[in-house]
Amino acid sequence: MAFHKEEIIRFRHCDPAGIVFYPRYLEILNDMVEDWFKVMGYPFEEMGNRLGAGVPTINLNITFMHPCRQGETLSLTLRCLKVGDSSFEINISGEQLGQPILDAQIVLCFTTIGRQVNKLSIPDGIRKKMQEYLTDPTAATI
Amino acid sequence: MAFHKEEIIRFRHCDPAGIVFYPRYLEILNDMVEDWFKVMGYPFEEMGNRLGAGVPTINLNITFMHPCRQGETLSLTLRCLKVGDSSFEINISGEQLGQPILDAQIVLCFTTIGRQVNKLSIPDGIRKKMQEYLTDPTAATI
Amino acid sequence: MAFHKEEIIRFRHCDPAGIVFYPRYLEILNDMVEDWFKVMGYPFEEMGNRLGAGVPTINLNITFMHPCRQGETLSLTLRCLKVGDSSFEINISGEQLGQPILDAQIVLCFTTIGRQVNKLSIPDGIRKKMQEYLTDPTAATI
Amino acid sequence: MAFHKEEIIRFRHCDPAGIVFYPRYLEILNDMVEDWFKVMGYPFEEMGNRLGAGVPTINLNITFMHPCRQGETLSLTLRCLKVGDSSFEINISGEQLGQPILDAQIVLCFTTIGRQVNKLSIPDGIRKKMQEYLTDPTAATI
Repeated sequence: MAFHKEEIIRFRHCDPAGIVFYPRYLEILNDMVEDWFKVMGYPFEEMGNRLGAGVPTINLNITFMHPCRQGETLSLTLRCLKVGDSSFEINISGEQLGQPILDAQIVLCFTTIGRQVNKLSIPDGIRKKMQEYLTDPTAATI
Repeated sequence: MAFHKEEIIRFRHCDPAGIVFYPRYLEILNDMVEDWFKVMGYPFEEMGNRLGAGVPTINLNITFMHPCRQGETLSLTLRCLKVGDSSFEINISGEQLGQPILDAQIVLCFTTIGRQVNKLSIPDGIRKKMQEYLTDPTAATI
Repeated sequence: MAFHKEEIIRFRHCDPAGIVFYPRYLEILNDMVEDWFKVMGYPFEEMGNRLGAGVPTINLNITFMHPCRQGETLSLTLRCLKVGDSSFEINISGEQLGQPILDAQIVLCFTTIGRQVNKLSIPDGIRKKMQEYLTDPTAATI
Repeated sequence: MAFHKEEIIRFRHCDPAGIVFYPRYLEILNDMVEDWFKVMGYPFEEMGNRLGAGVPTINLNITFMHPCRQGETLSLTLRCLKVGDSSFEINISGEQLGQPILDAQIVLCFTTIGRQVNKLSIPDGIRKKMQEYLTDPTAATI
């Protein structure tokens, strides 16, 4: 199973060269992970307020294949690659009218939030949900 | 030779968990590349206006080792890894009081700006300057 | 006639105090003006590319009545207050579950874009559309 | 007494029209208030961590007189207009090579941070410092 989303490229995303300023793509990807957690039933704000947990990004490897411009629609697909004890790895790819725009591997980790940031085991409910998005259901360890 | 910079972590960089929101790190890295080009004598705005050239990011691989908080000072070091015909690769590492915060490999490419984005050979003047920052001066191809 | 929009408050909007960082509200308002122009048939990107025109903000007077938090939905209403020769004034108010969050008066101006920024008369087609959103249809001068 | 600061306009500040995207000006102004508090001896992060206090913006009235572009230096001046019980009003003006760029009146308020946002009296130490920046030292009520 994959999670899909479309994002309209806006004025605020674009730089003086008229294309998306790349840190803005990372905001778009962060929004998508946020939406995915909401769809799985674990909105970020509840994880923060109720569980004292967050999912900071540990590693990001992203390739930009083609620029995207104001008014274009970026079609994004999120897949889960691995689910470990406290960390998990996802892939997000983006295309515009069939043209590849970006491809990202992102490793995130469940942690406490606050002055001390410590690893947390992924809660069972979220783990089960994540596993439904695994491209290879045998990929259980990160 | 390496290029150094210190960045104070500000309120605007930080998220509800009190740590730097990771797309903000990419703004910090983009500022650093901008400063490096200025120090080399090729400010972004002149490249854009006079040469019709820009340096979009092609690939970014970044690891976040430890969170950074408001009021802390992030010490950044930029080194050049490879200089190719139109693309070049750099490393930026960041630490706070000796603790590693982030480590990034970034591939950027000289291109035209405007409706068409085409590769450009790196102008000779910039190439010579970049080579002074190569960690391994024999690393000439990307 | 008024233009309505709902905006979900996201992680990226919020600051270390857990509430929307106010420059992010201005991004939200800018998006809304962009959406309004699209609905009126004049997307920003076409105005820029075809007409060489833009609508920079000249004055902004905004009051924040109550903070908004992650996961809440901000209901926004845009009304047009005045349409002048090259400038126009709008009001955007925002509420969350009936509680007033923000109220903004914004004056924008049609201008050329590029090295020189000169005032432009509002094109007739856009002017007619804007007038449909006037709260007081006799308010023709800014 | 006034508080001065220079800000170099960067690539990340600018929009597809090549001028500063106005929400970015508000980030610049927020940084300046943050710097001012630091100079007065009350860094934001200490106010948050030690006092559980923050200074959200209540009202902002800003006029943009002239656009600013990448590579230009914006000279900013902050003056204090009024110091009340929990709120205070400041003016920030910006110019570039003698040309007025922006002029802002901002009302901010001391509050608790957390789930409940309640007004706080301005701590005496900060109040005394603020009063040194009053343009009119008799302006004691907001």
